[in-house]
Amino acid sequence: MILHDFERAPNPRRVRIFIAEKNIDIEIKKIDLMKRENVQTDYLKINPSGALPFLQLDDKNGISESIAICRYLEEKYPDPRLMGSSPLEKAQIEMWQRIIEFHGISAAGEAFRNKVEGFKDRAIAGPNPIKQIPDLIERSKILLDHFFKRIDSQLSQNDYIAGGGFSIADISAYIAIDFAGWSKIVPEEKFTSLNKWFEKIKLRDSIKA
Amino acid sequence: MILHDFERAPNPRRVRIFIAEKNIDIEIKKIDLMKRENVQTDYLKINPSGALPFLQLDDKNGISESIAICRYLEEKYPDPRLMGSSPLEKAQIEMWQRIIEFHGISAAGEAFRNKVEGFKDRAIAGPNPIKQIPDLIERSKILLDHFFKRIDSQLSQNDYIAGGGFSIADISAYIAIDFAGWSKIVPEEKFTSLNKWFEKIKLRDSIKA
Repeated sequence: MILHDFERAPNPRRVRIFIAEKNIDIEIKKIDLMKRENVQTDYLKINPSGALPFLQLDDKNGISESIAICRYLEEKYPDPRLMGSSPLEKAQIEMWQRIIEFHGISAAGEAFRNKVEGFKDRAIAGPNPIKQIPDLIERSKILLDHFFKRIDSQLSQNDYIAGGGFSIADISAYIAIDFAGWSKIVPEEKFTSLNKWFEKIKLRDSIKA
Repeated sequence: MILHDFERAPNPRRVRIFIAEKNIDIEIKKIDLMKRENVQTDYLKINPSGALPFLQLDDKNGISESIAICRYLEEKYPDPRLMGSSPLEKAQIEMWQRIIEFHGISAAGEAFRNKVEGFKDRAIAGPNPIKQIPDLIERSKILLDHFFKRIDSQLSQNDYIAGGGFSIADISAYIAIDFAGWSKIVPEEKFTSLNKWFEKIKLRDSIKA
């Protein structure tokens, strides 16, 4: 099993944190996004989407998409559970995952990729050229503010995002907020529950992964 | 258990097709999106996000987000499996789900919600006003063309999207293509595998749901 990875990108980092929480030993192969190694023939042969992270299995099967990789690892290495045990837990974690994905990580990605010069013609990850849309930068700030408010409200009544213990939803939300910070979009001080939770998560060993 | 639903919207329809495939009997309550019943106090009390569909459980817990609702039902009513059995199947279905979600359904949603006059100030679903960005209409056509190509390529080697049998990924891809059609964005004839698969899926009883 080989995880194709790039240290600085948010999605690969989600998977590394997940792996660290489960304490699984997986071979890592670096694909340098800055050198665009992800859209070169060698890598596209392994993963035609050119996206990272990508988990190559020993039987030559492969899994792209960070959360699909986590799903595979959750099923193979269930302890500790990070995607829920009961049907309700699993559903509530998936619900928060999607809220974080659509309203947090996507918005943080739009803020970053539509602004930075280096992503001029690749505002969406993958092998196809997509132009930047400057209006998305301003919109992402609005979306992220709504997102921070919603997460803060949830955390004002729960220690962790999905309501039970620490889960993949906490990893995703941490990454969303960290990634928004790349574009200097940070939760206001008034979101005290969110900010307190963020500092608590930051102390976990896995976050260094 | 009550499913809050609106017949014409794509996400609620995904869940209804999923329920029909599993042959589960669930009470349906209509929330009229056209009359904006989803952002009125009565509904926001049940589901603060104002989104549809929403599954209200008998113990007062609730699940929003279409795929989280499907996850709950998959766990409660595993037969027939629509989200995979083995770790690899589960991961590959989740991988395709996310590809469809981010590159298909999102793009179809952007094409529609950024154009139609009725969504002028609510280009993103939910209770917060978000302005339309006309540049997203043109971009969505490009994204959907890439998406059709990718799905066609996958279906040129597989009978169903995730590689095994019929799964939730087929439901989601069907909805993505149908939804793109609302904006008159349709797969070119050259995508023969995709078009053949679409006609095959259309014949399933569940699609009438």
